[in-house]
Amino acid sequence: MPEFDPILPETAAQHAVSRVPTAHYDETVNAVLARLSGHAYDYAGSVYVLDDEGKLIGMAHMARLLAAKPAQMIKEIARTHFPEVLPDTDQEDVASLAISQGLTAVPVVDGNQRLVGVVPPDAIFEVLRREHVEDLHRLAGIRRETARARTAMEAPPMRRARDRLPWLLVGLVGSMLATIVMSWFEHALEAKLAIAFFVPAIVYIADAIGTQTEAIAVRGLSLSNTPLNQLIGGELRTGLLIGLSLGLLTIPFTWLVFGDPRLAIAVALSLIVAGSAATTIGLGFPWLLAHFGKDPAFGSGPIATIIQDVLSLLIYFTIATLLVV
Amino acid sequence: MPEFDPILPETAAQHAVSRVPTAHYDETVNAVLARLSGHAYDYAGSVYVLDDEGKLIGMAHMARLLAAKPAQMIKEIARTHFPEVLPDTDQEDVASLAISQGLTAVPVVDGNQRLVGVVPPDAIFEVLRREHVEDLHRLAGIRRETARARTAMEAPPMRRARDRLPWLLVGLVGSMLATIVMSWFEHALEAKLAIAFFVPAIVYIADAIGTQTEAIAVRGLSLSNTPLNQLIGGELRTGLLIGLSLGLLTIPFTWLVFGDPRLAIAVALSLIVAGSAATTIGLGFPWLLAHFGKDPAFGSGPIATIIQDVLSLLIYFTIATLLVV
Repeated sequence: MPEFDPILPETAAQHAVSRVPTAHYDETVNAVLARLSGHAYDYAGSVYVLDDEGKLIGMAHMARLLAAKPAQMIKEIARTHFPEVLPDTDQEDVASLAISQGLTAVPVVDGNQRLVGVVPPDAIFEVLRREHVEDLHRLAGIRRETARARTAMEAPPMRRARDRLPWLLVGLVGSMLATIVMSWFEHALEAKLAIAFFVPAIVYIADAIGTQTEAIAVRGLSLSNTPLNQLIGGELRTGLLIGLSLGLLTIPFTWLVFGDPRLAIAVALSLIVAGSAATTIGLGFPWLLAHFGKDPAFGSGPIATIIQDVLSLLIYFTIATLLVV
Repeated sequence: MPEFDPILPETAAQHAVSRVPTAHYDETVNAVLARLSGHAYDYAGSVYVLDDEGKLIGMAHMARLLAAKPAQMIKEIARTHFPEVLPDTDQEDVASLAISQGLTAVPVVDGNQRLVGVVPPDAIFEVLRREHVEDLHRLAGIRRETARARTAMEAPPMRRARDRLPWLLVGLVGSMLATIVMSWFEHALEAKLAIAFFVPAIVYIADAIGTQTEAIAVRGLSLSNTPLNQLIGGELRTGLLIGLSLGLLTIPFTWLVFGDPRLAIAVALSLIVAGSAATTIGLGFPWLLAHFGKDPAFGSGPIATIIQDVLSLLIYFTIATLLVV
């Protein structure tokens, strides 16, 4: 079998094993089974069927091979429609294909459709687990290098702080911007200090709504075939419904506790507008990244949150200035 | 083979297939291979070795069986140390065992060690993928029922809003509490309005630090064997280092922009204290849930965030009242 070279990290080639059982399409099941014995294979869950030129044209699970009649031709029982990947296919795509196409192992072929290896199930387990931890870490803005959850909990605090600081520093710059935005509305706050009391609430709720959308978008964008404008439209309406429900619920609280119906309406209206904006950004930002070939998971996390925060403050103070002051 | 009954959802039994190749420990490799042909198996990646009473005592990968000498005894080549699970073992534990023990399929036995089935690799793929989406959704506070990422993006907005509202409503109550906490410090804000400008920054940074810890804890708690007090100690020091770095960086900004060195020190000190509190809560809350048999992932998300928010506000206003007013 040809060698694959060079081996890129996080690709099919990195995880593939090369010693797997193969068969010529014209062999009988019996002949194949008889020939397998005595070989040292890395993975023997399936037999890979090749044509005269050594091109991969089919595959048969061991269970299928054992169930077949001995005199049957291997080409009759092999699955001929199946996905294969190239050596440089990203490991996440390999795992997604395995799941969506119901494969327990994914064959890797070269540019000439010749079998160069198979990504076995245990490698796919590892890829799925690593992806899982990476998504969680990206959603939280932790550097990719710390992707091993256990290391992240047991490394020395100095090293952990270093891995976690980069995104926080970007967030710090953003939060200083939020401070400046608030200072623009000093006049409104001097006129009605109670406006300030609702800042944590508005910012928190818009973030919570946006984070929900991000968490859905991180995986959902790669699974869905719906066009973006429909997805955005759906999320916008969802955000509007959520903002409306939460906004209306705050009115009696604000009115009763602070005795100001105009403030109550400003808070409710801000939740509706900021809630709709949050779902739109929570979906649009990961989508933009996916569109430019980046992992949508980078569009979640601390950067998206601080953008939401600044926008929520602008929305709230604009509405409050117009209605309350 | 005995039936498993009743089948609980999200357990080993739900995913197990029962028709798998078995062998008596006294058989030769040759005899086993000859006997396998002509059977309809659900999964044939391994042969499961049984003793005289039908108890599972070993397993051999198909690759290992094919590589062995025909005259060898199956008991000589079988792996005899391997984990097995009970029918009611949680599916996540099945998947974790497969990864940690290097199994491609996990045998399921009854209380008498008799083989009742095998969880095949494709079922483990599904479990890993579902866990992944569930963790993301819990971190964002979306009801478990929406765990299918694709559905969550394509369901009607009304249904999506309904799935996402429950945790947000709890968060709304918490955010009204944050509003009341801020109103307690009305006097401090009247004396120095600029204190209010840093509220979004303090709350945002403490949240960002806490979310990082939660994301690590969600997976890390189940992988790590380190005792909690050591884990908490490590996270507390990590939070202190992060808070210290970020806090010191804000001093020149606050001093220059607002011309108040005492405010600058109050903001920096609050970031240090709130940052350390954030890592402690971010780890302690999921741990508490794990301790009481709940999934630690429930300890992440909107509830943990609003607790952080209220605590950060209390820390900041207490320090600001003491130093600035």
